[in-house]
Amino acid sequence: MNFVAALNDVAAKNLQVLEEQIRQAIADDEFIFEACEPLFKGGKRLRPMLFLLCANSKDDCPAERTMPLAVALELIHTASLVHDDIIDTSKKRRGVETANSKYGAQIAVLVGDYLFAKAFQLVAENNYGAQVQLILSKLVKDLCIGEIMQDRSLFEVPTMTEYYTRINLKTAIFLASCCRLGGIVADMDSREVENLTAYGSSVGLAFQIIDDLLDFFGDEKITGKPNGGDLKSGVITLPVIRALEQSDEAPKLRAIVTTGGSVDAAIKIIQATDAVDYCRTRAQAHIEAARVNLPLTLKTSAVLALEQVADFIVDRTR
Amino acid sequence: MNFVAALNDVAAKNLQVLEEQIRQAIADDEFIFEACEPLFKGGKRLRPMLFLLCANSKDDCPAERTMPLAVALELIHTASLVHDDIIDTSKKRRGVETANSKYGAQIAVLVGDYLFAKAFQLVAENNYGAQVQLILSKLVKDLCIGEIMQDRSLFEVPTMTEYYTRINLKTAIFLASCCRLGGIVADMDSREVENLTAYGSSVGLAFQIIDDLLDFFGDEKITGKPNGGDLKSGVITLPVIRALEQSDEAPKLRAIVTTGGSVDAAIKIIQATDAVDYCRTRAQAHIEAARVNLPLTLKTSAVLALEQVADFIVDRTR
Repeated sequence: MNFVAALNDVAAKNLQVLEEQIRQAIADDEFIFEACEPLFKGGKRLRPMLFLLCANSKDDCPAERTMPLAVALELIHTASLVHDDIIDTSKKRRGVETANSKYGAQIAVLVGDYLFAKAFQLVAENNYGAQVQLILSKLVKDLCIGEIMQDRSLFEVPTMTEYYTRINLKTAIFLASCCRLGGIVADMDSREVENLTAYGSSVGLAFQIIDDLLDFFGDEKITGKPNGGDLKSGVITLPVIRALEQSDEAPKLRAIVTTGGSVDAAIKIIQATDAVDYCRTRAQAHIEAARVNLPLTLKTSAVLALEQVADFIVDRTR
Repeated sequence: MNFVAALNDVAAKNLQVLEEQIRQAIADDEFIFEACEPLFKGGKRLRPMLFLLCANSKDDCPAERTMPLAVALELIHTASLVHDDIIDTSKKRRGVETANSKYGAQIAVLVGDYLFAKAFQLVAENNYGAQVQLILSKLVKDLCIGEIMQDRSLFEVPTMTEYYTRINLKTAIFLASCCRLGGIVADMDSREVENLTAYGSSVGLAFQIIDDLLDFFGDEKITGKPNGGDLKSGVITLPVIRALEQSDEAPKLRAIVTTGGSVDAAIKIIQATDAVDYCRTRAQAHIEAARVNLPLTLKTSAVLALEQVADFIVDRTR
């Protein structure tokens, strides 16, 4: 069950419509449908659902106004995952064989490109206007810059600032944009839109910190991937950065993470420090900031739902 | 010297402005500039120059109205080349080391994504409106479908119809869209826009046929790549399709092209048929169709320039 849909009946109904419209959006071409349909299985739909929750958080916003953009957001997210998987060693994503593994790198690149283009087509067809187009194109650019930053510094220990810059570009700007777009399509005033954006940004930071924690300490049966994947591929994240500051065995941990060494040994060193608690505390602080930023003008039920999403972000197991 | 700029002073001046604005468009981020600047070297700028010629073919269209879209068209084209090179064996493109060879596949994918997003950002920022966005997003989709079609049938002999479908999606729709956009931003009437589109489509078909011919029979010193590259990578094009219809040695040629065998042996068999003449005649016929489609309402100087572009397409050596 999708966690956002579990919040209330409106979200559950929206999710159903969203799933159907995602299927329709990839149905223009037979091969694209065959290649993409499995890619959309198992996603949390966090981005479009955040957008939909925000768009409906003051008054109800008609589905014709929200759904095409909700679909576009999930297409962009999935396109970025498909492109992420190009040289990723893992052959599965969301429990499904990746496009790269199934069709090879070249076709996976093209399938991702197609999904990006389809997203922009949906937005153009539904006359969302230049402001929405601009937010989308900028978030894709930021996503690319964040990923490039990450790929160019594999096996290097980032500073705290570098880590936060990266997760902001990779994740927080995307989630902030989803919430911002919700406020915009619902014609909220600029203060409400800024507050929703700040909410989304904080939720995004918390989301990525927890993601990075789950990569080490998640239940592999639930996350669906082996622990320490980031470490193995050279992506150094907050648990390691904190442990390097705190541990007596920092030199040993540094040697492991800068060479992609033993995950088990790294986990042992991290667990002997306060790194796990520290990450949870940081994520929780961002969630508090998210909560504080929620506009006071929203419906009570919407505030509740957006708070629950925020809480879920830190409590989730996958 | 760029061939379109060689046509007249206006085109030459436009090219200069275009080059400067392309540099500006990739200057937002330091790494992107470092990675992308070499990628734009040596291109023919056919797409933006066709767009600019068409936009200025009736009355002069202000540069503020045309240039951002001209840049966007070249960014999209370059993004598609960067993504093309991901698994391409050639380490050079336009005489310059590919992003893939220099930075690896993952970063090359992200650089291409960034260029696509930047193109859409330029279009949003300059308020070209939903119609222009739609044409661009559709042409990217078609480009992807054409490339996917090609990549999924490597080492298979296409029918004439399949060949034309592929080059239409890969090339003709892009060039047609450039000309169409020229007519649209210059506020031409729908008949003029349709005629310019038809002109661009025919030019595009001729362009790709000549490209496919040059791949076998070009002067390697001028094309900058070894002959037979398509055959080696399994892309079967018009010279082969025609030779297979005409040659007594068709079974031998079929064996070569379906296995990526000897380029020299294939060239010998093709040259013993009428395939080269046939391809030139086909390209010439498309150029005639292009010429006939030019709207009668255009300036004489513009008609001359657009005819010269068309002629150049078949006469070019690279």
